[in-house]
Amino acid sequence: MRTTVGIIGGGPAGLLLARLLHRTGIDCVVLESRTRSYVERRQRAGMLEQGTVDALRESGAGARLGAEGLVHHGIELRFERERHRVDFPSLTGGRKVTIYAQTEIVKDLVALQLADGPPLLFGARALAVEKAESEAPVVRFVHEGRELTLTCDYVVGCDGSHGIARDAFPADVSRTYAHDYPYSWLGVLAEVPPSCEELVYARGPGGFALHSMRSPSVSRLYLQVPNGTVGDDWPDDRIWDELAARFAIDSDWRLERGPITAKGVTPMRSLVHEPMRYGRLFLAGDAAHIVPPTGAKGLNLAVSDVRVLARGLAELYRTGSPELLDAYSDLCLDRVWQATRFSYDMTTMLHAQPDGDAFDHQVQLARLRRITASRSAAAELAANYTGLPLTV
Amino acid sequence: MRTTVGIIGGGPAGLLLARLLHRTGIDCVVLESRTRSYVERRQRAGMLEQGTVDALRESGAGARLGAEGLVHHGIELRFERERHRVDFPSLTGGRKVTIYAQTEIVKDLVALQLADGPPLLFGARALAVEKAESEAPVVRFVHEGRELTLTCDYVVGCDGSHGIARDAFPADVSRTYAHDYPYSWLGVLAEVPPSCEELVYARGPGGFALHSMRSPSVSRLYLQVPNGTVGDDWPDDRIWDELAARFAIDSDWRLERGPITAKGVTPMRSLVHEPMRYGRLFLAGDAAHIVPPTGAKGLNLAVSDVRVLARGLAELYRTGSPELLDAYSDLCLDRVWQATRFSYDMTTMLHAQPDGDAFDHQVQLARLRRITASRSAAAELAANYTGLPLTV
Repeated sequence: MRTTVGIIGGGPAGLLLARLLHRTGIDCVVLESRTRSYVERRQRAGMLEQGTVDALRESGAGARLGAEGLVHHGIELRFERERHRVDFPSLTGGRKVTIYAQTEIVKDLVALQLADGPPLLFGARALAVEKAESEAPVVRFVHEGRELTLTCDYVVGCDGSHGIARDAFPADVSRTYAHDYPYSWLGVLAEVPPSCEELVYARGPGGFALHSMRSPSVSRLYLQVPNGTVGDDWPDDRIWDELAARFAIDSDWRLERGPITAKGVTPMRSLVHEPMRYGRLFLAGDAAHIVPPTGAKGLNLAVSDVRVLARGLAELYRTGSPELLDAYSDLCLDRVWQATRFSYDMTTMLHAQPDGDAFDHQVQLARLRRITASRSAAAELAANYTGLPLTV
Repeated sequence: MRTTVGIIGGGPAGLLLARLLHRTGIDCVVLESRTRSYVERRQRAGMLEQGTVDALRESGAGARLGAEGLVHHGIELRFERERHRVDFPSLTGGRKVTIYAQTEIVKDLVALQLADGPPLLFGARALAVEKAESEAPVVRFVHEGRELTLTCDYVVGCDGSHGIARDAFPADVSRTYAHDYPYSWLGVLAEVPPSCEELVYARGPGGFALHSMRSPSVSRLYLQVPNGTVGDDWPDDRIWDELAARFAIDSDWRLERGPITAKGVTPMRSLVHEPMRYGRLFLAGDAAHIVPPTGAKGLNLAVSDVRVLARGLAELYRTGSPELLDAYSDLCLDRVWQATRFSYDMTTMLHAQPDGDAFDHQVQLARLRRITASRSAAAELAANYTGLPLTV
């Protein structure tokens, strides 16, 4: 097989890139190792920056997002039994965010792709990227029991943190930065209308809790738990009791309970691989970087990578100029490190630090109080949360 | 002896409090264990927030400060061989800072005090505060070989981090929060005009360096060094070479060298004692809290403590209302923790972390880049650096 851009991975990054390339007349093939139904049910993020919404609209996948996405104008911080709202539009000159689950984005993009798209192969497991430094890199993959090759002008690894694209980077050109946090998130989906209209980030007595939502009838809730926690240690009643304790405030408010339909534990990790390009192989999204979920930046970073890449490829094929494409790694990494910093700060500001002392806890409270007392501190949080502007 | 307010310690906090009380007709006595010449030569800070300048003016000690103080409108950050200016007035609505050495403030206040003051006793070594919870607390002290007592309405401990006033707080009402940083500062005074017009905070290849000044002909320079460093390990040439390396930038600039006239190593520590009041005994300044010098907050916090205390005592004696005096500890601690947070953040953002890894270093650089790229991040730094507004 031959194509212009070979895309490994049919998650939001790979699918969106395929759509954006297709619209500029660049042909591509998407290889996804899993089945369609698996990909469409994978629970992930759901907080979209304005730039992410814009990119999805530009790709043609904006209709249902526009109809069903919940536009949020702020978040709430809770600590010391008080609630404090951070209002995004007034702090950022009008910016806001949209709640729309990644599963829905993937469904929308898959449907578009199968309707008029360039090829999207499910069950196509990539084995290796070869000749990345040549003018005709090759993806070896298995599909329906046969081993095949896809020869490309360019290959893009959108195959996540366990993907194989990164293996094609020689050890001496690649560097990995990693940080493991000393806690995990226990996340649940519950069939109950959200108890809040916006996301609530709480630094409660036992640690962090997050109240989020998937839709007007489905709540998404998270609890900080020790590393190594298994979901079975947390019967539903214990989860609700702990959530209620961490969200508790002195004013009138109640956490509504309902049937828990999914439960999972996620470790918290920061990871950055540099550079994001080797020869004619590019990495985008989780294949290149992982952030802890606290700042809700993972999906948004993947989308901004892909926007830069789509523009760079479009410019190359339209004008012959590789300038933007050559700047891809540096441009993206600048944004990646800002999101990594912000995610790290949000995470450490809101979680109980198992190895922290009383001094650390007081500094943490001072940080939270500062955001609620100062316009410049709140503006800086809001600017990062709603998303730094794309530089291309 | 009998007085209304007994003040232990004749540093800037105690002397300024005496002046402010004197101007509202409240009599007091200042006990200072050292000699006048020792106190007037003790090298300390020199960066004054606007509120500190205002308080010194209000006390009558503003004349020489106004004539000789150097008004600074910003600071410079250096990292990755580039310089970036943070402009205070444009980021804070007009605020600026004044460079005027603590030694000069002390000289001005001592001269005023001896001219028309309430009594200021040098060589008066306080031994203990007794009956703090009564209506007539007593300071026992030694002066000219005799043990004496000073009976007061109120006692204020301005006697620094090694003072005795704090010993009168029972263990079960007092709590200490402490943090030791894994590096120290080697500070030098040099007889050479400053190489920069404003303070330069550098995150250089070997760690932090600060370029400051005492006057148009005297530079004050600091280097991050490992804990346990002794000044003798650092001959003058080694100091200048290391300073030059850490301040090095790609554009045209040169560090001017000159004779080093003083050299000292300071450990970096954060310390907060809570509460700042027990009965009729108050703590102010270093007696209650220590910050690392990076944010230049120590002297400014001492002055803001003393301003609140002077107002509270004035209100009590004028109107009989103890309201502001009763709020003293909470009001001050709120500001103390914000300054502690800011000093901690400035310190960790600018120093090489001996126990840090490559990830931590990249986050540190992302933090510095963010301040130079974003108005809200720069505004938040400028607001903290020029001083949070006094809340009374």
